[in-house]
Order: sequence, then structure tokens, then C-alpha cells
Amino acid sequence: MKIIIIGLGLIGGSIAKSLSSSKNHEILAFDIDQSSIKNALDNKSIAGSLNSLDDLGNTEFNDSLVIISTPPNVTVEVLQSIDFVFNSSVTITDTTSAKNSLHKTLQELNFPQNIIFSHPVAGSHLSGEINSVSGLFEGKSTVLSYHDSATSMHVNRVKSLWELLGSKITVLDAEIHDQIFAYTSHLPHAAAYALLNTLKGLDQDDLAIFSGGGLGEFLRLVSSSPEMWTDIFLMNEKNISIAIEELIQNLNLLKGQITNDPKILRNFLIELKDFKESNY
Amino acid sequence: MKIIIIGLGLIGGSIAKSLSSSKNHEILAFDIDQSSIKNALDNKSIAGSLNSLDDLGNTEFNDSLVIISTPPNVTVEVLQSIDFVFNSSVTITDTTSAKNSLHKTLQELNFPQNIIFSHPVAGSHLSGEINSVSGLFEGKSTVLSYHDSATSMHVNRVKSLWELLGSKITVLDAEIHDQIFAYTSHLPHAAAYALLNTLKGLDQDDLAIFSGGGLGEFLRLVSSSPEMWTDIFLMNEKNISIAIEELIQNLNLLKGQITNDPKILRNFLIELKDFKESNY
Repeated sequence: MKIIIIGLGLIGGSIAKSLSSSKNHEILAFDIDQSSIKNALDNKSIAGSLNSLDDLGNTEFNDSLVIISTPPNVTVEVLQSIDFVFNSSVTITDTTSAKNSLHKTLQELNFPQNIIFSHPVAGSHLSGEINSVSGLFEGKSTVLSYHDSATSMHVNRVKSLWELLGSKITVLDAEIHDQIFAYTSHLPHAAAYALLNTLKGLDQDDLAIFSGGGLGEFLRLVSSSPEMWTDIFLMNEKNISIAIEELIQNLNLLKGQITNDPKILRNFLIELKDFKESNY
Repeated sequence: MKIIIIGLGLIGGSIAKSLSSSKNHEILAFDIDQSSIKNALDNKSIAGSLNSLDDLGNTEFNDSLVIISTPPNVTVEVLQSIDFVFNSSVTITDTTSAKNSLHKTLQELNFPQNIIFSHPVAGSHLSGEINSVSGLFEGKSTVLSYHDSATSMHVNRVKSLWELLGSKITVLDAEIHDQIFAYTSHLPHAAAYALLNTLKGLDQDDLAIFSGGGLGEFLRLVSSSPEMWTDIFLMNEKNISIAIEELIQNLNLLKGQITNDPKILRNFLIELKDFKESNY
């Protein structure tokens, strides 16, 4: 089977590298950045590249799998630009971590049967093909979201891809997906940005000398791609706003306990440690 | 020189292990938990133990170095209980990460010349002697805080200890110390607790499946000792409250940008990434 990766960044590049040892697939790629294509050809993770997305209309791409692995906002555009393969034997998936607005795009496109959304819960604060690695999805979760109109042939093709990459698959409604990830992924990033802006406001030199592991944990998140996170925040705006509000309430709660009640504070921290240890 | 470690937890145990290869020092310890003492005797990181802190008054402990490495609140009590060695040839230091209330204790004790506070900026979410490691302080910062009354003999003894352990030393006024660490260490922990409480409030099973690296970074902080963090939050209450307020302002700022202004949001995230990369 031909697999065409559109966007050879950290995720697309890692899919290519992870699949390159499989003899059953021919991995091709499309990226506007020719240096990513050249890298991937050099390290033999792809067998070739497409000159134009219009090529996907050629009969040689029948029954192939197209993976759009671009920043979320670009994913919408790419999807709209390949409408000529909607409801065909070509399967289309993506890799973004916000699904609601993609789902709305599907609605406008009258729910093509061959679009299955994927969210591999894997990544890094690093980006670009240069940082891609084989095995990135091994043992990680991948969440699929699709409309009732999707046919099982296409669903199974996408499932098989992620299983081959070693992922554990969960299926979630797009709306539930975005609600959950607003808390488990988008909120930690929002908190990290807000925290760093707080430190930035101090105008104190050499804070790094006084920063132990605690801060380092947060700072890594801020190294992620600002373009990608702008898109994610915007595409999941409503859920993230609610999650930020709830975090603010919990910060005020903690502040109240620090000021007023040592015993309740201590129990609160103990309960949170217990909750963490039984759930994560 | 005799070095007496009071409190053989992660930090005290790691000091013992790191010093145990030094032939110039005799490492002794005191801990109410006899299993910690037994562990340390078994792994040969200490040469013996004290039955009572009163022993420190014996002449054999002249010119020794006492390191109080207990939870912050206990450190105050230990300090008060060894007042018979104040202004003697015995040097006293600690390892806690909040200094203002210790400084106030000093004031009540009329500023003994032989108390030099230490804050090694090293640690782990793990606690206890069992998790202690040799080399924990290698390449890390250690901040010293002391009153003008402290004599250089005692200051130099504490400096030599941390230099021997491989730390880089900075001297900070106790008040400035607590202001800085409210932001670089205590605020990240406060944010992690508030974030986990937000997730706890969701009452959604299996959130762990949907948690990528972003959340994991925060969760590790919540595994730290609740007792220690209760003490730290209480002992640096004023500064932490201000820092939490500023974090809330920055969360509201980010929320506003997500809702209103994609361009400003994108620039904001780019600036923060730049700031992070040039400062940390």
C-alpha cells in the first residue's frame, strides 16, 4: 500500500521513519519545505515525494492512505484542497490534537466516508523532520474520531496504521476528545506559558541559577512550536477557556488554604498525591 | 572534621553518600527514624549515629559541622533545641528552601555567629534516605543566606562543604531568597497542585490514557512530600500568594488572547519561547 505523508515534521517524519522498515508499504511525502524532503530521502525513510497534491487524483494512488501531518490550521486547508479524493478508495487521516473544528469542516464537506481523524498522544517539545525518531508511537495512545458516515474499510485502514506503529487505539467523539484534551494537554501548556510570563515580568537576571527541577518541567513545554500551539488554542478556544477558569479557581483555593488553614492545606496536598498515584 | 547530619532524608542521605568517600571527614547522623540510620550504616555512608542531640554539647564535637536536613518546620524546632552550641566553634547550617522564617528565628535567638543557612537547589520528587544518591549536588547551585553577625570562619566552613559536594555557591539575603524562590520553585509546585485538582474535579475515568508528556511534567511535582510542601507554602506564604496572583493575571491574559486575538497570541507564544531559550 502507498502511504502519503503530507507535512514531514516531527510527527510525519517519525511516522516515515517508523514505517520505513516495513516492506508492505511505499512511503511517499509532500512538504513545501524541500530540505525536509531531502533529509527524509537521504535517511531513506521515504521512497519518493509528490510534486503536487493534485497527483493524488491519479489512479496509481487508488487505495492509498493519506496522512495529513501539518499544523492544525494548515490541516483544514489541506483537507479542503484534496476534495477530489473525497468518497474515493483513498483513506485520509490527520495527526492534530484538536478535532472539533476539523469536524465542522467535515460537516461543510457533507461528511465524506473516507476521512478518519487521528490524534497520536505522542510528541516532543522539539519539532521538525530533523528531530523525528523511529518508534515515537510505540506504547502510546492514539485517539480516533470519525463521523457515522465513515465506512469500516477506511476506519480499519487507519486502525491498522497505528497498530503497526505500536499504538493503543481509543475511539472518541470529536467533541468529547476536545473537552478531555483541553484538560490533559492544552491546559498544562497554557499554565506553562502563563508561568513563564510571570517569571519574565520579574525582570530579574540569572533566574536560571535559582531554578531547580520544578521549573524545568514547565519550561520544556514552552519550547514547543508557537505556530502549532496558536492553532491548537484557537481551535479549542471554548474548552480551553473553561479549563483556564477552573485552574484559576483552584489556584485561588490553594492560595486561601496557604493563607488560612495549615491542616486543610496538608490534607489537600496528601489527597492530591494519593489521587496522582492511583490514577497516573 | 566531624559532620553531623540531622535528618537522613533524600537531602541528608545524599550529603552522606556524597561525602562518604572523603577521608577527611567523619560523617555521623541523627534521625528519629532508626531504619534510615540502619540503611545509612549498612551502605557505609555514615560512620555512626548520635543517641541524642544533647551529645552535640560534648567537647568531641568542637569544630564540627552540623547540617540540619529536616522538613522546614522541624528545622526551626531543631535549631531552637540546640541553643547550647550557639556562638561556639560548632558550625550550623540547614538545607531548606524557605529562609525568611528561619531568619526570624535567628532574630529571636539574637543572631548567633555560627548559623549559616544553605539551600541546595537540588532534589527530586522522591523522598527518604532510600532514594538518596551520591553526587546529587554536583553542578547544582547552592544559595547561602546569613546575617552580618556570622563570622567568616563559619561561613567558609559551609562554603567548603558545598564546594566539596560540587555545588556552585551564590549568597542571597534571606528576604530576596524567598522572593525569588517563590517564583522559580514554589509557584511551579502550586500550579502543579492546582492543575491536578482541576483534573481531579473532572471525575473522568482513564484520563491517564489521554495524557501526553505535557501533563506528565506537572504530575511529577505532585509526588513530592506533602509535609515538606505544606511547610514551604506556609513559611513563604506572603511571597507565594503574590506569585499565585500574578500567575492568575497571566492566565487571564492568555485566555483573553485565545478568545480575541490570534496575531497577538502567536507573537506572545513566540516571545515566550525566545525568552525561554535565551534565559534558561
